Amino acid sequence: MSWRKGGSTSLSSKPLATIISAGLSKFGRREGVYGRELFAEAVKEAYDRCPNLDPRRDIKALFVGHMGESYEHQGHTGPTLADWAGLLPVQATRVENACASSGVALRWATLAISSGAYDAVMVGGVEKMTHRTTPEVTEYLAMAADYPFEQWHGITFPGLYALMATAHMHHYGTTEEQMARVAVKNHHNGALNPKAHMQKEVTLEKAMTSRVIAWPLKLYDCSLITDGASCLILAKPEIAGKFTDTPVHVIGAGQASDAIGLYERESCTTLKAAQLAGRDAYKMAKAKPQDIDIAETHDCFTIAEIIAYEDLGFCSPGDGGRMIEEGTTEIGGSIPVNTSGGLKAKGHPVGATGVGQAYEMYLQLTEQAGRRQVEGATVGLTHNVGGSGATATVHIFRRA
Amino acid sequence: MSWRKGGSTSLSSKPLATIISAGLSKFGRREGVYGRELFAEAVKEAYDRCPNLDPRRDIKALFVGHMGESYEHQGHTGPTLADWAGLLPVQATRVENACASSGVALRWATLAISSGAYDAVMVGGVEKMTHRTTPEVTEYLAMAADYPFEQWHGITFPGLYALMATAHMHHYGTTEEQMARVAVKNHHNGALNPKAHMQKEVTLEKAMTSRVIAWPLKLYDCSLITDGASCLILAKPEIAGKFTDTPVHVIGAGQASDAIGLYERESCTTLKAAQLAGRDAYKMAKAKPQDIDIAETHDCFTIAEIIAYEDLGFCSPGDGGRMIEEGTTEIGGSIPVNTSGGLKAKGHPVGATGVGQAYEMYLQLTEQAGRRQVEGATVGLTHNVGGSGATATVHIFRRA
Repeated sequence: MSWRKGGSTSLSSKPLATIISAGLSKFGRREGVYGRELFAEAVKEAYDRCPNLDPRRDIKALFVGHMGESYEHQGHTGPTLADWAGLLPVQATRVENACASSGVALRWATLAISSGAYDAVMVGGVEKMTHRTTPEVTEYLAMAADYPFEQWHGITFPGLYALMATAHMHHYGTTEEQMARVAVKNHHNGALNPKAHMQKEVTLEKAMTSRVIAWPLKLYDCSLITDGASCLILAKPEIAGKFTDTPVHVIGAGQASDAIGLYERESCTTLKAAQLAGRDAYKMAKAKPQDIDIAETHDCFTIAEIIAYEDLGFCSPGDGGRMIEEGTTEIGGSIPVNTSGGLKAKGHPVGATGVGQAYEMYLQLTEQAGRRQVEGATVGLTHNVGGSGATATVHIFRRA
Repeated sequence: MSWRKGGSTSLSSKPLATIISAGLSKFGRREGVYGRELFAEAVKEAYDRCPNLDPRRDIKALFVGHMGESYEHQGHTGPTLADWAGLLPVQATRVENACASSGVALRWATLAISSGAYDAVMVGGVEKMTHRTTPEVTEYLAMAADYPFEQWHGITFPGLYALMATAHMHHYGTTEEQMARVAVKNHHNGALNPKAHMQKEVTLEKAMTSRVIAWPLKLYDCSLITDGASCLILAKPEIAGKFTDTPVHVIGAGQASDAIGLYERESCTTLKAAQLAGRDAYKMAKAKPQDIDIAETHDCFTIAEIIAYEDLGFCSPGDGGRMIEEGTTEIGGSIPVNTSGGLKAKGHPVGATGVGQAYEMYLQLTEQAGRRQVEGATVGLTHNVGGSGATATVHIFRRA
């Protein structure tokens, strides 16, 4: 591997928008609360960080990522959460792009600022999942795959990612142990994150011998069913200083699509939408992969993190397995990935995940990440994937 | 009533975006097709109208209004419809704001153009409903109301709008016959629209004696469960002439929210979100209610059209019932409303409705509305409401 830190502090791109505050609910099995209450918890943290903000005066729009109305039998989440954030009658829009729902919401919130339309907006995400049975959750998640050609035939998301994993193994020699090492790393990081769903280490042996869910994916190759909510407040870069001493700029925001069904894709070893979203984000940020100091990638399954390394240019196609083996993406490595614990250990409340990744970037780039802080991180990237890759968004952030 | 046509042709507002083409599937009970196929039908009409457009080259983003993942067990509709529109790998976003889903999508598509982010985008909407039983549809629609405080107690949308109707009757003396007259007018218009779900007239007597659904609302006070899809192509005003000789400008786009539960509202005789969305749209358009020549309002129930007249300033609060009685909003009246037949007769495939309303404006303002054409219409307005009014959008259009 030839990963080399770039001169990231010299990135000259103009900020699109600036994060002036952020909040995250505790992730986990949150009993006895509605999703709207989890969202209020995230929002309260964001308001508490930002005492100069008068939310009803300053925030002009709300974008909410929320994947499934089936979990709580509740759609129309935009105005519902606007109410619980104390923002009525602000315009409020729910975005649904499967597990990339709040990543896409973040992108439109960013463009709402960069376009000059609004001075400040809120973007968040929420999902309340654990009160449902595993078969119910599996069914609701499957709605992000193709109904007539995938769901109907019984294939679920572990199955779809298992197909990608076997293709990657066949083409590149990627191993089950390499995948398990992603779990070991992310559980290690999650154990350092007091908001993570699972704050416990896992050994390579335990991960490798856990029960098979859809071969080659085992229990520890799969992310968690989690309750949680996330929130950012974005402002025009010119006025961010009124609200915070520790702004974080959004300097790249890419989004792309691919066919919803795997059967229609050009390749099963790469996510074309993620490559394209990354290409656009890098271009906007005037950045190269080597400029990235730290990243949160969409590790819904361990193979997805390996493919993400390749799609984002952190390594060459097929080298993802070796990259995890060499420790490059551990805290202390040259590009730490998923310091939060990732979807694997922090948890994956699907609608909340994209903005939750950006929350981790906010903490890291403002040196508030506690025991998992990556010293000197200046430029960060988040990679949020919907379904099996029909949607992807990539955002790039820079310490101000 | 003192409705007076304004000098609408002289509106000086700068266009936000320009409709260069539009398409609508046949609305109705469409058996044996998926929603994506209905969307392709709408898209094909839009492409056929616009031979100079190279969709994959020119269209840079897709916004899709789609309300319910339950109907077809299918979420993640953005990339799915991008595929069926031949637009992959274009960025594609699903917006869900209940029955205002595609109205909200239209607003963000408009702002994506007006901000300068993109030269051309597609916005559409879709819903496939009629293959489900009425109890199922009733349940799925109810997800747009508040779960813990409304749905859970068994109140459905006819019930919620019945509460508004009785409040309006109590405060203003609005009558069941006035509501029924909305149905008579809209069924008359629908009979002139070859794409309407129900192309048949209804007499006042038949409407008044139809069975009670939720008193005072009877069968003919309720809009239809319908399959359908809608589509617009928007471009920067400066380049619209490359694609069409009959452009229609979007000159106002407002959106606002209110509490999702009726119990939390200040009033049950008005939709505050619609008032605020209208206020913003009029301001952007530099227009007054008197400038509007023609409108499509959200007549999910007949009382909703009466309230819309008042919220949009077409008459004073409480005068909506008299306005329908006096024929002001008929074709041939001074401000024809729901020339398409409205949700009442054209049908209400919920996710498709907002953009479907704009399709009618496109036809009317380009003199393609056939037997229901309003001669000389120059400025039009659409009003799209989500749920019982927690979301509302208002758009204003001007013939170029």
